[in-house]
Amino acid sequence: MHTIEGSINTPKGFKAGGKHIGIKRKRKDLSIVLSEKPAVFAAMFTTNKVKAASVLWNMDIERKAGPIRAIVINSGNANACTGKQGMEDTKVMAQKTAAMLGCEPEEVFVASTGVIGVPLPMDVLVPGIESLAPEISGELQAGLNAAEGIMTTDTTMKILSLETEIGGKTVTLSGMAKGSGMIHPNMATMLSFITTDVAIDQELLRRALRKIGKDTYNMISVDGDTSTNDMVMVMANGSAENTIIDQEDNDYHKFYKALHHLNEHLAKEIVKDGEGASKFLEVTVDGAKTSEDARILVKSILTSNLVKTAMFGEDANWGRILCAMGYSGADFDPDKTSLEFSAAGQRILLMKEGLPISFDEDFAYELLQNRDISILIQLEDGNAKATGWGCDLSYEYVKINGEYRS
Amino acid sequence: MHTIEGSINTPKGFKAGGKHIGIKRKRKDLSIVLSEKPAVFAAMFTTNKVKAASVLWNMDIERKAGPIRAIVINSGNANACTGKQGMEDTKVMAQKTAAMLGCEPEEVFVASTGVIGVPLPMDVLVPGIESLAPEISGELQAGLNAAEGIMTTDTTMKILSLETEIGGKTVTLSGMAKGSGMIHPNMATMLSFITTDVAIDQELLRRALRKIGKDTYNMISVDGDTSTNDMVMVMANGSAENTIIDQEDNDYHKFYKALHHLNEHLAKEIVKDGEGASKFLEVTVDGAKTSEDARILVKSILTSNLVKTAMFGEDANWGRILCAMGYSGADFDPDKTSLEFSAAGQRILLMKEGLPISFDEDFAYELLQNRDISILIQLEDGNAKATGWGCDLSYEYVKINGEYRS
Repeated sequence: MHTIEGSINTPKGFKAGGKHIGIKRKRKDLSIVLSEKPAVFAAMFTTNKVKAASVLWNMDIERKAGPIRAIVINSGNANACTGKQGMEDTKVMAQKTAAMLGCEPEEVFVASTGVIGVPLPMDVLVPGIESLAPEISGELQAGLNAAEGIMTTDTTMKILSLETEIGGKTVTLSGMAKGSGMIHPNMATMLSFITTDVAIDQELLRRALRKIGKDTYNMISVDGDTSTNDMVMVMANGSAENTIIDQEDNDYHKFYKALHHLNEHLAKEIVKDGEGASKFLEVTVDGAKTSEDARILVKSILTSNLVKTAMFGEDANWGRILCAMGYSGADFDPDKTSLEFSAAGQRILLMKEGLPISFDEDFAYELLQNRDISILIQLEDGNAKATGWGCDLSYEYVKINGEYRS
Repeated sequence: MHTIEGSINTPKGFKAGGKHIGIKRKRKDLSIVLSEKPAVFAAMFTTNKVKAASVLWNMDIERKAGPIRAIVINSGNANACTGKQGMEDTKVMAQKTAAMLGCEPEEVFVASTGVIGVPLPMDVLVPGIESLAPEISGELQAGLNAAEGIMTTDTTMKILSLETEIGGKTVTLSGMAKGSGMIHPNMATMLSFITTDVAIDQELLRRALRKIGKDTYNMISVDGDTSTNDMVMVMANGSAENTIIDQEDNDYHKFYKALHHLNEHLAKEIVKDGEGASKFLEVTVDGAKTSEDARILVKSILTSNLVKTAMFGEDANWGRILCAMGYSGADFDPDKTSLEFSAAGQRILLMKEGLPISFDEDFAYELLQNRDISILIQLEDGNAKATGWGCDLSYEYVKINGEYRS
């Protein structure tokens, strides 16, 4: 497995494009991805009870289980909390895209991200789709345009392409994602799309994504708010012509490893570019009784405002970490817990088996001035382990999210 | 029932005092409250799995169920995550206080608030207790000193005294509380102490506090972090000489109403003085299927960073409220939900039965410039209702909590 230059249309048999159509003021706001052949797919959606129209549309497609052909994504408007009109507008987006690309509406995934509670500007979207559809291609620049079209206040483009060999064939995987922030800051929406030319059984692809999603996207947090529009999806069109992966054999594990790597990379990129983030935090809890306990502890630490502001302030205020673990609801014994920080190859032990260790505050302060900080917790309670990623809580976060929408 | 001037030692048979003994640099840091006669009591403690030594000491006293005599409280050091030494130090605090006041250590509640993971400075605390104990009295100023001694970065003293008539006797209730913030910002600890001279059965007092706690302290949030040291307790010494309240009769309801009023007042004061708070938010969810659903929805809104920053930014970004409701896990139907803001007698409807209402942004902005904002949600799903209180998330919160401890 190795990284290659590429974008969402780099795997064989995919085309893509993105452009500015006028939902946002200046930046690109519409993207289309097409698989020339029908592709199997796997998807994960927001667990929020309030789901955007596009999420409901895609869940419906997922239930039908047939292969799909395309994804159409607009940024600048989330089409959430928009009632029946919102459902109708999503359907029209799929219909128009399908008509332009020569497939069925039920083969088109739809995603939207942006301000909520405002109807989609269909007078802009419909001609936009008509204009973009004929321009999609396999060119690298077109793929990069697609990755740009899904961005909101993201400050970096989040893409990665990998190549691996499966059954003697070169298999390519490409991903593009957007993170937390919008032109009209409204809600942190996470979107991630992956294309691959691998030939794989759809059920196996879904099993892989569910497992990987749990260890990657579900282990990141910018502000603890789960959006109405979150979505991760993988399309696999078989164009690599490998013998189809239909069991958990060596080929599956090789593909799984590549898909895991790709998703973990995109998930971390989303956090690194979290709204106002000045620190990237990796939290590992080891020695837990169960994986679920480990995961809950990691997420409680990553979502604590007091931990996040301490990291912003470069303060080795480890008591807040113990506190966040304590109210998480997970099972652990504070009296057996050890805690250390590490960054740039240096470590500092703060608590050993429940007891505070007196430490050099100057050294701790120096260590915390790094951008990438690891927090390592050993529970001595079992063998389960979990890792998650987050960011600090800065003035900039408050500024971005406190500013008036218009 | 009416408000009177007073402090924690105003009910008959109570003495109190507070002074600076040197745990903190300048401000008062030790308080003692004494009931001349043994008093029945009720208490609620933090649900955090990591509990400060003082919380464990008090829980032990509570299990023994005997009456108590005194409370000793230090600020400036939480004595949490301090292992066996911490337990020993708490015991010494109780022993020394008991010896000075002429009671048993098991009759002394202990509370600590401040930095965690640092041993208590017993060389300062022991002489401090010896010095303060002889100075406690029934004087108003001594009671105010006690209320000041439990403060950390609180900017206002949180006290209230009430008088009511029960069985022909005047009954007095007084409370003092501290909120969220410390000299060494470390963790939001909430402490609240109530004295009353009512004669009441202990089990009945405990039942009342449990019920009231659920509707008051458990419905406030500054930052969603539950401290290791939180504690609410009521002492009732019977000095008012009313016929003892031992069933849920009229006398009980009269006392309950006063106790509820007192605790709701203190809980709201804590939130109003939350770290960096510039807005006071009251959130009401009505028409829920169950009280539990209503409570969960209120708390999810109050702890959402995106809602809190929108309120700081005076932005009528109601989509974030729907979003926070959606991921709360509570049962409700977004398509039947209505939402409005109100402040200073004015109202603005933003969503009606699931559909966004187009509203005057200028008017909404003007309304949100008030300090006290109410958010009212109608679910049309049942008859259950809950109200909770919180504050915004400001630059100042990040500053207070991001600053290096020393």
